[in-house]
Amino acid sequence: MNFCKIAFCIAAAASLCATAGPACADKGMFLLNDPPQRLIAERYGVNLDDAWMRHAMLAAVRFNNGGSGGFVSENGLVITNHHIADEVLAQLSTAQNDYLTQGFLAASPAEERPAPNLELNCLQSIEDVTDKIKGAVKPYMDAAQAAKARSEKMAQLEKESLDATGLRSDVVTLYQGGLYHLYRYKKYTDVRLVWAPEQAVASFGGDVDNFSYPRSSLDAALFRVYENGRPVRPQHYFRLASQAAQPGDAVFVIGTPGSTNRLQTAAWLEHHRNFTLPYRLARVRNMEAALRQFAERGSDEARRAASYISSQANSRKAYTGMFQGLLSSDIVRRHWRTDQELALKSACPQAWERIASSLHGSERLEEEYSLLEGRDAYPSPLFSAARHIVRLAQELPKPSEKRLREYRDSNLESLRQDLFSAEPVYADLEQARLTASFSFLAERLGSTHADTALVLNGKTPGERAKELVQGTRLADPEQRRRLAKMSLEELRGCGDTMISLALAVDEKARSLRDEYDRCVRSPLSEAYGLIAQERFRIYGQSEPPDATSTLRLSFGQVKGYEAEGKSVPYCTTFADLYRKSREAHDLPPYALPATWQKAEPSLDKGTQFNFVSTADTIGGNSGSPVLNSSGEMVGVNFDRNQYGMVRNYVYDEVQARHIAVSSDALIAALREVYHAGALADELTAR
Amino acid sequence: MNFCKIAFCIAAAASLCATAGPACADKGMFLLNDPPQRLIAERYGVNLDDAWMRHAMLAAVRFNNGGSGGFVSENGLVITNHHIADEVLAQLSTAQNDYLTQGFLAASPAEERPAPNLELNCLQSIEDVTDKIKGAVKPYMDAAQAAKARSEKMAQLEKESLDATGLRSDVVTLYQGGLYHLYRYKKYTDVRLVWAPEQAVASFGGDVDNFSYPRSSLDAALFRVYENGRPVRPQHYFRLASQAAQPGDAVFVIGTPGSTNRLQTAAWLEHHRNFTLPYRLARVRNMEAALRQFAERGSDEARRAASYISSQANSRKAYTGMFQGLLSSDIVRRHWRTDQELALKSACPQAWERIASSLHGSERLEEEYSLLEGRDAYPSPLFSAARHIVRLAQELPKPSEKRLREYRDSNLESLRQDLFSAEPVYADLEQARLTASFSFLAERLGSTHADTALVLNGKTPGERAKELVQGTRLADPEQRRRLAKMSLEELRGCGDTMISLALAVDEKARSLRDEYDRCVRSPLSEAYGLIAQERFRIYGQSEPPDATSTLRLSFGQVKGYEAEGKSVPYCTTFADLYRKSREAHDLPPYALPATWQKAEPSLDKGTQFNFVSTADTIGGNSGSPVLNSSGEMVGVNFDRNQYGMVRNYVYDEVQARHIAVSSDALIAALREVYHAGALADELTAR
Repeated sequence: MNFCKIAFCIAAAASLCATAGPACADKGMFLLNDPPQRLIAERYGVNLDDAWMRHAMLAAVRFNNGGSGGFVSENGLVITNHHIADEVLAQLSTAQNDYLTQGFLAASPAEERPAPNLELNCLQSIEDVTDKIKGAVKPYMDAAQAAKARSEKMAQLEKESLDATGLRSDVVTLYQGGLYHLYRYKKYTDVRLVWAPEQAVASFGGDVDNFSYPRSSLDAALFRVYENGRPVRPQHYFRLASQAAQPGDAVFVIGTPGSTNRLQTAAWLEHHRNFTLPYRLARVRNMEAALRQFAERGSDEARRAASYISSQANSRKAYTGMFQGLLSSDIVRRHWRTDQELALKSACPQAWERIASSLHGSERLEEEYSLLEGRDAYPSPLFSAARHIVRLAQELPKPSEKRLREYRDSNLESLRQDLFSAEPVYADLEQARLTASFSFLAERLGSTHADTALVLNGKTPGERAKELVQGTRLADPEQRRRLAKMSLEELRGCGDTMISLALAVDEKARSLRDEYDRCVRSPLSEAYGLIAQERFRIYGQSEPPDATSTLRLSFGQVKGYEAEGKSVPYCTTFADLYRKSREAHDLPPYALPATWQKAEPSLDKGTQFNFVSTADTIGGNSGSPVLNSSGEMVGVNFDRNQYGMVRNYVYDEVQARHIAVSSDALIAALREVYHAGALADELTAR
Repeated sequence: MNFCKIAFCIAAAASLCATAGPACADKGMFLLNDPPQRLIAERYGVNLDDAWMRHAMLAAVRFNNGGSGGFVSENGLVITNHHIADEVLAQLSTAQNDYLTQGFLAASPAEERPAPNLELNCLQSIEDVTDKIKGAVKPYMDAAQAAKARSEKMAQLEKESLDATGLRSDVVTLYQGGLYHLYRYKKYTDVRLVWAPEQAVASFGGDVDNFSYPRSSLDAALFRVYENGRPVRPQHYFRLASQAAQPGDAVFVIGTPGSTNRLQTAAWLEHHRNFTLPYRLARVRNMEAALRQFAERGSDEARRAASYISSQANSRKAYTGMFQGLLSSDIVRRHWRTDQELALKSACPQAWERIASSLHGSERLEEEYSLLEGRDAYPSPLFSAARHIVRLAQELPKPSEKRLREYRDSNLESLRQDLFSAEPVYADLEQARLTASFSFLAERLGSTHADTALVLNGKTPGERAKELVQGTRLADPEQRRRLAKMSLEELRGCGDTMISLALAVDEKARSLRDEYDRCVRSPLSEAYGLIAQERFRIYGQSEPPDATSTLRLSFGQVKGYEAEGKSVPYCTTFADLYRKSREAHDLPPYALPATWQKAEPSLDKGTQFNFVSTADTIGGNSGSPVLNSSGEMVGVNFDRNQYGMVRNYVYDEVQARHIAVSSDALIAALREVYHAGALADELTAR
């Protein structure tokens, strides 16, 4: 591994870090099997030995709804963010018991509430299978054949691993195709809600404070993992630090960042800026408007739509930040420069051109693909269930490696857990979402486009959504189980409207997937594979791969920053929470719940509430434990500030920070605000 | 004039009315100088004599912010909708006195609050100038030259009329160019707020009930018109009817419908569906999301953004309804059929083809035009002021008829009243709106497009908006007055950022306007002129022209309807208001203000609140007086139900209804809820 030279570091620290080339500063989301131990030792004088790394890996968990977390007690408590738990809270809520508004506390183990559809994955081992995957590709194959050969090999290795170990086994594509690693996970599906604060304090400041700092949010929640009806006793869990994080402290974030685009070429970034982000912005605005309109119907509707709305608003804000970032020509220009530097030294400069030419003119295909195969035209669990049921009937008769990737043997258990979950489905909400999406489809492709006609079937969006939702019984998990056993022939005659829609669009959706794979994904994968090889050859494996929703380690230091001429402190305290609420006359989004108003006299106002560090995070890191040098948890990551919104593309340690809830605040809140002494004791047991 | 045959009426009444061809049913927004007196007499046995028509014309007023209204007392009281007054309410509100939330009542004439920027127009006469305008076109002219000749002639006639009469004089293009009428208005600019209810009851049911019925909304407000510091004493005003509207009663709506598209060709409708509406939907969603995000910053921000948000939400709902309507192929198919019927009988069938070919491929031009010349890229009063200031400097040296149409002599007084108004401008709100719009520009045209670069000047949307808003003093009316006196040369050196932007984009914006006029507007205008001539020749002038924001008369009858198997009553009463509020646990959008809770015991619950009729209305009719046969006001129109959302394209009298606030409800509310007995007495004086 190559380490950054001091001179380079100084230059880079004054501005954004280069997007490719050698690692620098606190940049990087590192592979657990290739941790930056020497870099950390050099920068922070901290030696993370292999035992430290192994402990962190085995105590961390990934949430299947896109978040991170970690075991935090010997009796299987898992911490994550409130905004990762909010879907579960909404699912468990009723008009009488709205856990989003009221919060939740299980007074005893018996009151812990099973989450309808959570799967937690705990990484057990990583194996490099690059040679095996690449070896499946023969010289005579074109890009599409090569992609197929790789995909079949991946499914085969996963199946063999699953059979041999019983562990969930996923081959992960790193460096856009430069490396392939086999990840093996222990899987937990009995996950129960233990505690969550009121949304008002969990996302104190709401959409206004989202992606900003200073913050005062208790964005945390606790689950307990069960196996065979009893709490698991994990061999590895994170102990809570007895001392709060201090400025200059080295900290380590362990979690599953979703995706970054730092090693993408400038041509890819331009496509992303010119087409993909505007498309995604249009999409989230369409859905957000429909959901807000739905929520205005009444308080029950508002409760049911709440977590969808905050998710859309969060995406809108994130995409807006990314788009604005790419509009400042700096980021793209940097990528052009690093592309050129590497291409000049490279043996295959045509790889960059190949990426540009594959993306050129692919906008319409990408849009159709996103709508029909990517389900933007019908973003409803009812349609997703119908599609899975139809495709299970089509795919299961094939050998595992010949199936569409999501139906490979090693993924079937998780897929079925999701498909048969008892997650509630609200017909009126689904109808509103489908109406908006059908309109979006017609707006984007045109009302006379064959795809629009295929989906709308001669109806208006509103009529079609109504007909589909009224004519399906897929809201019932039992019905999903029944239909999932049917043959394709039986499904064609089953009379369920949503199954009929899934059948009607299937051929077109599959052909779009084939075409997108052939014309875009495969050539890109091949070209990126070549670029990654060249990057390793020239720079060494200095830069960790782009994030892939798999476990990574980031490091940094607790540190304030300067913004708009002012010094921004490294942490906030409870005093800031109460001050902010008073200044806003206790009005939303700064209204405090009654529990916090009542607890004010007994709380130590100086308690550290939120803090920031330079460690490198991105969406997907929500709920990541933040550890000190001893591997103890000083906090749980929940957001980044506005300067970190372009982290998809570039890392900056001057102003960009991730934000964490302090472990001290968590314990104080449990004891003084929620009177959950037993939980606090469990978390702090030594 | 041709009247509909009985057989045709019966067939049409069972479904939607044909979009062209002879008039039928209660369809039509009729010209005041060509009223359907015989049709009304035949259908309702009511004879509206010329005195009735003249009285209605002289008592009606048009609001310059897009609404309708009418004089309702001998001391110059004018009624309109609350949602037409809400801009004024927001402008007059402060953090301490939020008139949108609290409502407003002037306890004495001294407390009546001047609206910062309202102009009311009262139509005095209509003159047919078709021959003069058409006579300006010479045989050797092409479409663009003809359009220019017509435009110059219009400006000349307007100028002559203004000089001769002192009245605001506008030539109105009817039938997309079939007829030209000169409208002369008395203009009132000292308009003072007298009374407005709380928004909670004015738009009871909020966005949920918008465009639906049954309704319970007191969507009304009262202004008083002053001249020379004293209330005007209008010769004509509407007396309030002493008896509420009854089922079967003939009613007459007098107001200024904004625009309809019933006489547009099918090709135009397809263009509208395939491009214009999706574009407009994307636009309003972008702005609505930005405004909602702004409003979440706090209660003061929410108050300042409120009327913008409800306007965007209303547009979104209207466009959604229109788009969904056009996706049902029926409407477009009907237009194709009527096009074909007329084209077959016509001497110039190529006119239809000309419209189609002019629109074909015009999408990009229309988009650029809307963004740069139409100001979608910078929808801020700060930019609008800058543009007017720059263009006044360019246009005023030219003779009136050679100027851009909005700078013709006859329009200058109104334009300056608008430009120099003391309407408050909030820097933070403008910054948020510009940021969103700049992003929208980049999303639509692409970040590397020359227009985007011209507007953004190398900055991100957020940076550019900040720089522009911080560097302009145009929020100050005095500064606008100063700059409006400067020459173009002086403006170039004035250092105001917004003036610089207006200067920078001016050449491009003008060239887009020229190109759009030349390639789309002029050929369409010429072709529609031919079609209108043919329609008159073949069917007579049976169908009134599409709405043009000028005074029209509609007629219909008070009548319930059937929907989803249920009978929907012709009116609601106060009892429905209280019941609905109770059923919703008095939560928004059904929360009642304290005044209404307190007044409940003293109100007669049987009082008619809202009622519906079959009369033909569209956006712009908001605030239109609804009259009985005697010309007395039985209510004030404020909305239409969901079945009326496609009225832009087709009229239906089976289920589509406009909705009015009953005069009875207005008087009862003034007396019992607002203790405004003097106002009620003034309105009911005989």
